[in-house]
Amino acid sequence: MFVEKIQPRLSETNLAGHIGYVVLPAWFEQANEKIYRLFIPELGKKKWSLIVVKFELECLAEIFHDNKVTIETRVQKIGNSSFTISQALRKDGKTAARARTKMVYFDYQKKKSQVIPKALRQLLVEHI
Amino acid sequence: MFVEKIQPRLSETNLAGHIGYVVLPAWFEQANEKIYRLFIPELGKKKWSLIVVKFELECLAEIFHDNKVTIETRVQKIGNSSFTISQALRKDGKTAARARTKMVYFDYQKKKSQVIPKALRQLLVEHI
Amino acid sequence: MFVEKIQPRLSETNLAGHIGYVVLPAWFEQANEKIYRLFIPELGKKKWSLIVVKFELECLAEIFHDNKVTIETRVQKIGNSSFTISQALRKDGKTAARARTKMVYFDYQKKKSQVIPKALRQLLVEHI
Amino acid sequence: MFVEKIQPRLSETNLAGHIGYVVLPAWFEQANEKIYRLFIPELGKKKWSLIVVKFELECLAEIFHDNKVTIETRVQKIGNSSFTISQALRKDGKTAARARTKMVYFDYQKKKSQVIPKALRQLLVEHI
Repeated sequence: MFVEKIQPRLSETNLAGHIGYVVLPAWFEQANEKIYRLFIPELGKKKWSLIVVKFELECLAEIFHDNKVTIETRVQKIGNSSFTISQALRKDGKTAARARTKMVYFDYQKKKSQVIPKALRQLLVEHI
Repeated sequence: MFVEKIQPRLSETNLAGHIGYVVLPAWFEQANEKIYRLFIPELGKKKWSLIVVKFELECLAEIFHDNKVTIETRVQKIGNSSFTISQALRKDGKTAARARTKMVYFDYQKKKSQVIPKALRQLLVEHI
Repeated sequence: MFVEKIQPRLSETNLAGHIGYVVLPAWFEQANEKIYRLFIPELGKKKWSLIVVKFELECLAEIFHDNKVTIETRVQKIGNSSFTISQALRKDGKTAARARTKMVYFDYQKKKSQVIPKALRQLLVEHI
Repeated sequence: MFVEKIQPRLSETNLAGHIGYVVLPAWFEQANEKIYRLFIPELGKKKWSLIVVKFELECLAEIFHDNKVTIETRVQKIGNSSFTISQALRKDGKTAARARTKMVYFDYQKKKSQVIPKALRQLLVEHI
């Protein structure tokens, strides 16, 4: 399990006075960074090899700009060429949102999915 | 059914050369505007009365900055105090993403859900 | 002069009930697209060759989510390896914001500025 | 002087492989929070009373997702109903961007500027 602190931004508070749900995927993605790095050690410098095919978000409590936010990230399931990440967002200790992200190991050149190699699968298994 | 044209922004293209999935919720929310207005005719001026409790996103094809994007929005299901919106994002005519959003009719003063009044329910039914 | 229609997003309305100034640079960048394309015809597919070194924004009137927004874009000044773009944002016909962006023709490989070639300079001159 | 740590988000890296300038205003605004709180102690709960009329940004070096970023914030000038904030963004210790923001003390009800009261002015002076 990875734990990532998130910094809610002032500009992320919307009309209703709270952080809107449209902001949360970027937070959950930020918390996914260490998973991404298993696949792409030099994130931002090398070619990308993951693609998100499904993202599910459950909002359990309002989040405000001054809440202390952390996200816990686990690998939930590993398939042949895909895997699912399960995440919980805690505000001030309490679960305020949950997300599930299904990612496919993707060859951007050939524009198709590829089998996750054994070594990478092993790295994922450690974070189940 | 409502159809909304979306303008992909140059700044929404990420490292991988396409529009990242974290951008899409804001697009789907934009397309929800006409649904929101059934509840809040003077959007932005009156108090907010809806809250998103669930958001599911399926990505079927890469979206690029210069794609022509439209979103089709339908009401899918109406509960007692909640309803579900179903949306399809078309790029150049083809479905590239789908979203489902469950919204609760919410009293921000009392911080609890409220029953959808009959008149509002009737307006929602017209968009099933 | 280029004129670009901008679609304010519901999610871009902030706590104060209007579109915050932090949103505007993405709008002005969107309107710069046709200038960018003079340098990079296949935007998003080829290497990037421009870098913003200065951005000045003046906010003259509040902008709301349901305003009709267009941005007028002109080249203002052309230097040796840089040029300045001047833009006016109109809401419902009236100027609500102005921006000035100084861009440098940049070699991302060598990480240094490069002289704007004569052919490109000629294209810029047409939009002064 | 206030110093604020900023967390660059994975989703803020653009096509060119760095953090685009359109992202920076939200970072500088985040660093302005403590200034805002002098005016609006319960940020997000009470009515807003500041408006940005000018924002100037200078980009001195590329910023990448994995840079350590801090922003130093000072009050630079105090006028009758406005004041100017000066900020420096450091990445890994080195100045990578500078911003200047002119804010007006604003009455959103009457839609006009108001004189900064003596007590508030005194608070600002402490951060020059």
